[in-house]
Amino acid sequence: MPASTRVITLLTDFGLKDHFVSAMKGVMLGVNPDLNFVDITHSIPPQDIRSAAFTLSQTYPYFPPNTVHLAVVDPGVGSARKAIAVSAGNQFFVGPDNGILTYVLEGEADAVVYEITADHYFRKPVSSTFHGRDIFAPAAAWITRNISLFQIGPPLKNPVRLALPQVKRLNEKLLQAAILAVDHFGNLITNLKPADLPAYGKPSSGACKIVTPQKKEITSFRSTYAEGNEGELFVLPGSTGYLEIVMRNGSAASSLGLSSGSIIGVVLSS
Amino acid sequence: MPASTRVITLLTDFGLKDHFVSAMKGVMLGVNPDLNFVDITHSIPPQDIRSAAFTLSQTYPYFPPNTVHLAVVDPGVGSARKAIAVSAGNQFFVGPDNGILTYVLEGEADAVVYEITADHYFRKPVSSTFHGRDIFAPAAAWITRNISLFQIGPPLKNPVRLALPQVKRLNEKLLQAAILAVDHFGNLITNLKPADLPAYGKPSSGACKIVTPQKKEITSFRSTYAEGNEGELFVLPGSTGYLEIVMRNGSAASSLGLSSGSIIGVVLSS
Amino acid sequence: MPASTRVITLLTDFGLKDHFVSAMKGVMLGVNPDLNFVDITHSIPPQDIRSAAFTLSQTYPYFPPNTVHLAVVDPGVGSARKAIAVSAGNQFFVGPDNGILTYVLEGEADAVVYEITADHYFRKPVSSTFHGRDIFAPAAAWITRNISLFQIGPPLKNPVRLALPQVKRLNEKLLQAAILAVDHFGNLITNLKPADLPAYGKPSSGACKIVTPQKKEITSFRSTYAEGNEGELFVLPGSTGYLEIVMRNGSAASSLGLSSGSIIGVVLSS
Repeated sequence: MPASTRVITLLTDFGLKDHFVSAMKGVMLGVNPDLNFVDITHSIPPQDIRSAAFTLSQTYPYFPPNTVHLAVVDPGVGSARKAIAVSAGNQFFVGPDNGILTYVLEGEADAVVYEITADHYFRKPVSSTFHGRDIFAPAAAWITRNISLFQIGPPLKNPVRLALPQVKRLNEKLLQAAILAVDHFGNLITNLKPADLPAYGKPSSGACKIVTPQKKEITSFRSTYAEGNEGELFVLPGSTGYLEIVMRNGSAASSLGLSSGSIIGVVLSS
Repeated sequence: MPASTRVITLLTDFGLKDHFVSAMKGVMLGVNPDLNFVDITHSIPPQDIRSAAFTLSQTYPYFPPNTVHLAVVDPGVGSARKAIAVSAGNQFFVGPDNGILTYVLEGEADAVVYEITADHYFRKPVSSTFHGRDIFAPAAAWITRNISLFQIGPPLKNPVRLALPQVKRLNEKLLQAAILAVDHFGNLITNLKPADLPAYGKPSSGACKIVTPQKKEITSFRSTYAEGNEGELFVLPGSTGYLEIVMRNGSAASSLGLSSGSIIGVVLSS
Repeated sequence: MPASTRVITLLTDFGLKDHFVSAMKGVMLGVNPDLNFVDITHSIPPQDIRSAAFTLSQTYPYFPPNTVHLAVVDPGVGSARKAIAVSAGNQFFVGPDNGILTYVLEGEADAVVYEITADHYFRKPVSSTFHGRDIFAPAAAWITRNISLFQIGPPLKNPVRLALPQVKRLNEKLLQAAILAVDHFGNLITNLKPADLPAYGKPSSGACKIVTPQKKEITSFRSTYAEGNEGELFVLPGSTGYLEIVMRNGSAASSLGLSSGSIIGVVLSS
């Protein structure tokens, strides 16, 4: 077995205080005792599929080929929602068919989706409330043992995809954008990319500005945290590839009263 | 060495911000550099042996043979309380002799208990306040190197066991039960099993109900979360094997004001 | 490759909810697929280099030779602060040159420091805000592949060191000391060592006492938690090697209103 197929990442809303995550790991080690687990996070807000999808999108591209990503935020557990396994970008993904893999499906042209139906791989009896342990975890572990995805179930044509917030051009001088996520430091990750702001990084002040629903304006655009002044709000090209609104040594989210899903305006050079 | 003996799980009340857990892992890697750690949780409420015992009981059955479970919630550290190593159900357990292994001892008929006394395995000097690092961790790591438990110390006849809350039949129509734990989502895990409620799952409404000390009643019994209505309190056969009181997209614990140890009544079909 | 060089520990202020930590792990697994990660903590208070330095000092001595410790609390990311790799005490350390390795540099006589400049090891493009992922993580992973530190960059003569709080003798009967850290249980870790209090452990009451800025006095000195009375404040020789002010089944920090950096007085035997 190539060493890189030993890695399974986990992304859930199960929290860190209960038995949920380790029960899944125990089941997987029973299938493949050589696994190397990487916890992405278990602190997704309960049932927040959108947040899970975004966090996964920021993580998986950094993993080596054949990594298996197990993502379980599953408010529809026990309902008719499907379970899926995906091959995309030389990696594998396992989770509920509820949009949690939206960024993967949008971003990887070679994505192929299979419905997980081969119940001889399941842990029995299958709980109606914990498919993470009984269906998704064993499927992920069996993939590391090099079964082919078509052994897990049939191809699925139209997996569920979330509608991702788009940058909209409202007129020649105004863009509508959105906050995708708020990180641990209170930085606001927007859905803007540097290319959306052609004047970004130009020395002239007033080249563009961001306006919040509360009419607050961010007019500073910088390249590093260190360039910012203490307590100043400014825009940075973040490590995510998106522009971020940050405050040096402070929380931009608290200061501006914005959160995931908030709408912002961008006034282009006037 | 069989690969499955590389796995050590950790369960403590040490939290995640300090050096405690990683100091234990460092000591163990010094004994066996090939270990594969699985953190069950380090967020047990400080010194809550009962909570630790329950969480361990929900995790260990899913692990493969020869897994070593290291459980350290240890308010009596430095006192005369003993340290123990247990073989049970083809797995191993290491921790203080304070009841943290109660469910294991009750649930595994083949359990054999040894007192940890062989101090040549200890890390020296042994701190009077951190036996997790200096006694329990090295014992767990040496077990993965296939020493026999009798090399660790003599058999122990009467290990400490917690009194676990039992379902009591108060009369023909009334059971007294208890809340064993509250999970991350606010679900209330009771000590009731489906077999305790013969009418469970029968279509007739009013077949039984749960009554809280505050006279609130739960009368819905369902099979999956998805069957519940938004904000409805209902009973589910949980993935734990116990019945759980849950609220769809909400916290049953907050709604009912119940917590671990709360007593509840069950009125059987009337 | 010797098994012990597979271990990389991680210590950051990145929190547990975002993609930051797993993005670093993904990058490292791309360099060396056999890594065994140990998370020391990711809950360092944002940008608290001093807290990170102390926590690392309490962990690294317990790890086996050739362990690589990756410590990233990096308020100066993107500025002119240097990146360093250190060989010390048969282990390796990677992080920003901002004092985070102070205890290592002070404690290990054989410490040798290199500046990380060999950008062919970096992940490209290098973000101006996340050197953890793009510079420090790959450097740590390449060290486990047995490159020599001089391949990473040139020796660095004067790495940044924090001024560590010293115990000061104010007069024959009075010492000035400090709180180095507060742990998960609210225990106050002082910078006093048992040798600083020659009368420690002597039976005579009143041999010495600790006085807080709020004029509270701690006069009990014990050897184990179990010796303390419920709710009593007392001094213990902690597992850290330092004296700790603790409260049995309570938080000394809350009770005394002290925190990391607080100054305390010690009145020697009168």
